[in-house]
Amino acid sequence: MKQLETVTSVFALGGLGEVGKNMYVIEYGDELVIIDAGVMFPEDDLLGIDYVIQDVTYLKQNEHKIKALIITHGHEDHIGGISFLLQNVHIPVIYASKIAHDLIQNKLIDRNISYQNLKLYDKDSVIKFKHLWVEFITTTHSIPDSFAIVVHTPNGIIIHTGDFKFDLTPIGPMADIHKMARLGEEGVKLLLSESTNALSPGFSASEAIVDEALGDVFAKAQTNRIILATFASNIYRIKHIVETCRENNRKILTFGRSMKNAIDIAIKNELIKDSSIFIDSNAAKDLKKSEICILCTGSQGEPLAALSRIANGTDKQVQLMPDDIIVFSSNPIPGNSASINRVINKLYLKGVKVYTNSEINDIHTSGHAKAEELKWMLRIIKPEYFMPIHGEYRMLKMHGDLAKSCDIPEENIFICQNGDVVLMDSHKCYRGKHVQAGDVYVDGSRIGDIGSVVIKDRKLMSKDGVLVTILNLDPQRHTLLIRPNITTRGFVLVNENADLIHEIENKVMEVVNKTLSNRYNLTDLKNQIILELNMFINEKTGRRPMILPVIMEVKKD
Amino acid sequence: MKQLETVTSVFALGGLGEVGKNMYVIEYGDELVIIDAGVMFPEDDLLGIDYVIQDVTYLKQNEHKIKALIITHGHEDHIGGISFLLQNVHIPVIYASKIAHDLIQNKLIDRNISYQNLKLYDKDSVIKFKHLWVEFITTTHSIPDSFAIVVHTPNGIIIHTGDFKFDLTPIGPMADIHKMARLGEEGVKLLLSESTNALSPGFSASEAIVDEALGDVFAKAQTNRIILATFASNIYRIKHIVETCRENNRKILTFGRSMKNAIDIAIKNELIKDSSIFIDSNAAKDLKKSEICILCTGSQGEPLAALSRIANGTDKQVQLMPDDIIVFSSNPIPGNSASINRVINKLYLKGVKVYTNSEINDIHTSGHAKAEELKWMLRIIKPEYFMPIHGEYRMLKMHGDLAKSCDIPEENIFICQNGDVVLMDSHKCYRGKHVQAGDVYVDGSRIGDIGSVVIKDRKLMSKDGVLVTILNLDPQRHTLLIRPNITTRGFVLVNENADLIHEIENKVMEVVNKTLSNRYNLTDLKNQIILELNMFINEKTGRRPMILPVIMEVKKD
Repeated sequence: MKQLETVTSVFALGGLGEVGKNMYVIEYGDELVIIDAGVMFPEDDLLGIDYVIQDVTYLKQNEHKIKALIITHGHEDHIGGISFLLQNVHIPVIYASKIAHDLIQNKLIDRNISYQNLKLYDKDSVIKFKHLWVEFITTTHSIPDSFAIVVHTPNGIIIHTGDFKFDLTPIGPMADIHKMARLGEEGVKLLLSESTNALSPGFSASEAIVDEALGDVFAKAQTNRIILATFASNIYRIKHIVETCRENNRKILTFGRSMKNAIDIAIKNELIKDSSIFIDSNAAKDLKKSEICILCTGSQGEPLAALSRIANGTDKQVQLMPDDIIVFSSNPIPGNSASINRVINKLYLKGVKVYTNSEINDIHTSGHAKAEELKWMLRIIKPEYFMPIHGEYRMLKMHGDLAKSCDIPEENIFICQNGDVVLMDSHKCYRGKHVQAGDVYVDGSRIGDIGSVVIKDRKLMSKDGVLVTILNLDPQRHTLLIRPNITTRGFVLVNENADLIHEIENKVMEVVNKTLSNRYNLTDLKNQIILELNMFINEKTGRRPMILPVIMEVKKD
Repeated sequence: MKQLETVTSVFALGGLGEVGKNMYVIEYGDELVIIDAGVMFPEDDLLGIDYVIQDVTYLKQNEHKIKALIITHGHEDHIGGISFLLQNVHIPVIYASKIAHDLIQNKLIDRNISYQNLKLYDKDSVIKFKHLWVEFITTTHSIPDSFAIVVHTPNGIIIHTGDFKFDLTPIGPMADIHKMARLGEEGVKLLLSESTNALSPGFSASEAIVDEALGDVFAKAQTNRIILATFASNIYRIKHIVETCRENNRKILTFGRSMKNAIDIAIKNELIKDSSIFIDSNAAKDLKKSEICILCTGSQGEPLAALSRIANGTDKQVQLMPDDIIVFSSNPIPGNSASINRVINKLYLKGVKVYTNSEINDIHTSGHAKAEELKWMLRIIKPEYFMPIHGEYRMLKMHGDLAKSCDIPEENIFICQNGDVVLMDSHKCYRGKHVQAGDVYVDGSRIGDIGSVVIKDRKLMSKDGVLVTILNLDPQRHTLLIRPNITTRGFVLVNENADLIHEIENKVMEVVNKTLSNRYNLTDLKNQIILELNMFINEKTGRRPMILPVIMEVKKD
């Protein structure tokens, strides 16, 4: 009888059914390779949460198998979780490409984490373990040094695309479509391909088109100061902007910490060759408006970012002038449009000219493949099996439909959720059991001490505030020692509503006296106060503040 | 010497620099006419606020001049503020068209307001006061009985368009372009025209096109149940849907209070003629899937609306079936796309088919004129002066540019903010002084008792919760009677962080003992606790909960 074959497991701990917190695992026998460790920025309803990261229980339990963490590229949703992962799980080595390497290094320094095994890979690297070996394919994305990861397993080849687009006139190197084609011919068992733009038909525009559009804006603004907001993470875009400024004899003032960071890394990696174009506010004073470009963060309307401060008139260094030209070289991320609108309206009120993608075509292009490009990837790799990754369920589903239209049989397409395991033997792929996966919340410096109760309480308080009522009881005589104290925040303006507060005090006294005259225990008393006060306040105000009764037993002696 | 001429004042108390809370005032001598009294739904950062309404101080101060409130049409941003206005200011009479009249009546009954002077107007009505007189022009919008308001003043004619589009194949009556043309020829001094879609180029699609698109969906879904979500306020759309269901032999189950309301009003006004098409859940049990259409609210992803409950699987009456077809006959209102996406992803996860405007063209069209239609209005009325209304500053600005392109001189265009007065004499229009205008918050049943402090506190608590520390002091002996009590919500999970809470208690003791040993007053002690605890907690957790020290002085006897 034939010996049981060892199978390869493939699954996500993050990135499926969501945009962000990417983390994929490929496991064979006693070897386990992790691809990416990103964060997700919380949706609005996760009040106060800074980041959402992966539940890495599975990795903790299989720590001894972990061979390496391999990073596809340097964006937050792929590297932002590394510092949290390292606090929890022993990772023997991290491989990253140049820009990603430097960004990770900065991040670890910021968080005071000392880690010695961060290593560089490039397009020619090959990383060999006992059974698994890994190589890389150059791709195009909105940050330099983006790669697809090829994992050779005893059961066949797996390709993970990372984030990519096909840009035939790219700013950086051309994607290595020949390596893709060679692997495709050799035979790829399973393709994991990103789905961010699966719902967008057609092809994405080339960065070269953006370059032209930017050039046009500069040509029109011969006598004006230009203020340009873009994603700090889009290092290629920053490279254009620098080159366009150089051609137009403008010096660059940068604002925003992440922007300065990105530029430092771009200079260090020789993507920007001459750093003398960057000046500080003092040097800017001697220049004409037509000789200045302000490059800043805040293209998503983030209230604390440089552009919002400028729009509000609260920035100490930049005051708007009526003939300034503001350019948003970015697209709104869904959910940010309201804040962006707010900033744009403030800018209009100041009388300046604003250009976004609605006013000028092609002032921004996405770094993610649209439907036709996704089909190119499917056709060139022509995998036997396909698992769409990176995206909400709707995008994964649509990407699955695209794969079907590219001749991948429906039964060979795996639309998965985080933790769903796809097993691969030498013949076929099929579904396995589920491993633990989920969301862990980071708030401040602590990981995972926030549960849904805490979030629910924050939500309650965000709506109608909190009302604390403190009772000093004499437990022996069953009496109130002093009048109940009412302290409230976020409920009503206390000074202007003294009568209401007084009525609430009286209501508390009434409830307490009624309850104390019976036999009582503290829990019952608290619940009774919450119940009756809730009704009373709701009747009076239509609001439901969180009611916190605190009972202090003070013995008289 | 010529006697000083009485001038007409025109200004907004709401609706400029914002979308919502529309209220415009036209005043001549001792006569004042108000057009519309809407609410605005608060932006996300106004935590817990239900509505934003106008500051009506000016109306209160000039109550004796008020002749009437005139309503353009029955949408919330035009009628939603009436019940609040009536609580504050004496309004002698309200004029509204049919559907608006019925919606206002329902609203007043809901809020227990008895008001006897709600009167009907129609396209032929003329309302005459001493100096001002008012007539109406039929327009097309997404709710029946929408009108532009013509105010004849001794200084010239003012036209207020209300909300409108030009639809040459409308569901209801055609806009009265001939009356517009006649008034245009007669000479209109000042046009106030809505700007909601000023940023959208081209023409809006006709409702007839939506009718076709809906027909196609029904034709494709011969054997499936159809669940259709749309705006309850779009009564014409509901009329289509009912007619399409009738043609396809489907009965209609409605969910959502506002939807039922809208349908009642549509039946009462004979927009829907045969009400036997509406059935209840019991009757639906005997029907085949192909004989049912569920019509519900929730097209904006509102968490408590019918569609969200259905998607969550928490609705008691509707369970999703895998071959259901869900249609969003709506467009996302900016700011809602994240919640809508969440609902759509949940629906996809349940395996049903979802159609939105991205999957099928023309399943929805806007009720507001796009740029070319706005130009039609400008050309047909050909006013001497122009004031764009209804919209954010950016939209007003763009609408101003459209007017310029239609030969209105730039100096005759007034881009205003709420409270900015435009004065009109027999010769010209010019800017006057500013009247009081602003936002008033409604939360629960109370108006205006919430200030920015309350909102700021809610925001603080929504991020990191609240921590109450209670000290029982013996004021004579300057000692703590018992250990400080710490109560916290929305900060950390208390049960799992007992050590942290204990450390915080110790810190409070330390601060109190240090301070009590000196001369102290209660305010200093409180501030000292807030200061030191804030630093201590931030160092430990990276969070800044709102700290509420409560000091109780309990005299020992």
